[in-house]
Amino acid sequence: MGEFELIRNFFAAAPCAQGGEGVDLGIGDDCALLAVPPGEQLAISTDTLVAGVHFADPCDPFLLGQRSLAVAVSDLAAMGATPIAFTLALTLPTVTADWLQAYARGLNRMAQSCGVALVGGDTTRGPLSMTMTVFGRVPNGLALCRSGAQPGDLLCVGGELGNAAGALPLVLGERTAEPAIADPLLAHYWSPQPQLALGQALRGKATAALDISDGLLADCGHIAQASKVSVQVERDRLPLSGALVAFLGQAGAQNAALSGGDDYVLAFTLPSVELSPLLSEGWPIHVIGRIVAGQGVTLLDSDGQDITPQTQGYQHFRESP
Amino acid sequence: MGEFELIRNFFAAAPCAQGGEGVDLGIGDDCALLAVPPGEQLAISTDTLVAGVHFADPCDPFLLGQRSLAVAVSDLAAMGATPIAFTLALTLPTVTADWLQAYARGLNRMAQSCGVALVGGDTTRGPLSMTMTVFGRVPNGLALCRSGAQPGDLLCVGGELGNAAGALPLVLGERTAEPAIADPLLAHYWSPQPQLALGQALRGKATAALDISDGLLADCGHIAQASKVSVQVERDRLPLSGALVAFLGQAGAQNAALSGGDDYVLAFTLPSVELSPLLSEGWPIHVIGRIVAGQGVTLLDSDGQDITPQTQGYQHFRESP
Repeated sequence: MGEFELIRNFFAAAPCAQGGEGVDLGIGDDCALLAVPPGEQLAISTDTLVAGVHFADPCDPFLLGQRSLAVAVSDLAAMGATPIAFTLALTLPTVTADWLQAYARGLNRMAQSCGVALVGGDTTRGPLSMTMTVFGRVPNGLALCRSGAQPGDLLCVGGELGNAAGALPLVLGERTAEPAIADPLLAHYWSPQPQLALGQALRGKATAALDISDGLLADCGHIAQASKVSVQVERDRLPLSGALVAFLGQAGAQNAALSGGDDYVLAFTLPSVELSPLLSEGWPIHVIGRIVAGQGVTLLDSDGQDITPQTQGYQHFRESP
Repeated sequence: MGEFELIRNFFAAAPCAQGGEGVDLGIGDDCALLAVPPGEQLAISTDTLVAGVHFADPCDPFLLGQRSLAVAVSDLAAMGATPIAFTLALTLPTVTADWLQAYARGLNRMAQSCGVALVGGDTTRGPLSMTMTVFGRVPNGLALCRSGAQPGDLLCVGGELGNAAGALPLVLGERTAEPAIADPLLAHYWSPQPQLALGQALRGKATAALDISDGLLADCGHIAQASKVSVQVERDRLPLSGALVAFLGQAGAQNAALSGGDDYVLAFTLPSVELSPLLSEGWPIHVIGRIVAGQGVTLLDSDGQDITPQTQGYQHFRESP
């Protein structure tokens, strides 16, 4: 048995590969088999993380295991889907038992937290990268698409923004900070919590939704384009963590919130009548702007002045190979 | 808009991304949405191909586009599933319009041939590799698993074996051959045809099935292990192409058929009573052995002597990075 077959057996024996609701057949055959209840659709998303592009190499394999799965499952949250399962295509330059065990521990922890089972995948030799494909289910017609935002809707987010971008200089070792600042930022970067319960609570209420991965302004641009509307973001309403403001200052924290990637917080549009019931249920919803007729994204200051930056959006951790 | 976002738009506009039966929502949102009819299960498989490991680099991108999808869809055939859709996670070191267009043409051709729609994926910068995840549907309880083979069943394959392994020295430029020999071998390597119709015809008839990717003996070992039986393979009943025998000689062709990977022909076990009706329907089924009580795989010569080789199975195109 070759070492890569040993790895396949290793993952097949992992706690997260031991079945789950909706999994009719897991690892070990030509295909996995999932059950989708009548009246529901299957939601699917794929994400690739490449060493040196999406994460520093080397990095802590336990944290990488958590993060690689969380990033993918966040797309299920953005769709309002209930998670079922995932596949893992893992490419490794060399096989190191310590690395694999730590990676699998991180994966298991996030899989348990999100309620997904590992049902298949592939393990191959090559430069370090991983592709996760995640599966969820959502009642017919209730998936949260990007295309339904209407003029008059509120623009909302499900939590503080910019923490992952704030963490990046810490991850790269370019800066240091005291634990009270560094710890919450790094926790957000390495272990983002997909907002699955919030996504499900927004079914039939939010008119458009996505998870913020490219940066708030860039991702609002995706809603604007898909919904054929204009999105107005109010800079002074952005929810910022105390750690982020302490680390970057108010202006730096706002910039991280507007343009930094990797937050994996939900952004969504909501008819104003839907807001109060959700707030009274205790959902962490922050109104940060609104939808108007038009096209594109506009950033406003507290006086309503247009302060939209010329360049928006997304940079990978490092854009060159 | 960055070059990788341009690529995403390029694939979103590709013919194979224009929807299809069972695709409720394709490329462009956080998730794709598939419909699975009541009474059916969703079948899922993931395959990664890495440059320099699973294919020579450089190679013809059109052929690579065809082959990368065919390899993945073949797992749906092995499960008896009807194809619906696939996702593509493509990692590229540089963006070259010519390469992308040729790759997409190959992908489109195979997608059309197999009846699958591109519903999502990811495009990232990094060392060349691709992960395909394919989706199909199969009536509840009729999927062809590896675990149902019974003593007394016939061991069958769906076509000639060894052609892809025979093609490898041609692909690598280590040998040449006249077109009458080289062309059919290379065609099999670069454009394997997933045996989807055969897989569906075997529903409710075959007791176990898989597609031969690791080599016949190694893959029979997977059936033996999953079904807890012994698989007897008769060397002199292996179906070999004239081109393969002309290129490698009888003994070399038999070795390629037994141990070479990448055939993507179905191997399956069949109660003998099921054989005649399938043959009279015209399915290309070759009986190459049988299932007996026990465990493992045995290779027999024409006298029934055990000639099982010591090492079985599978080598990647090149095992080192």
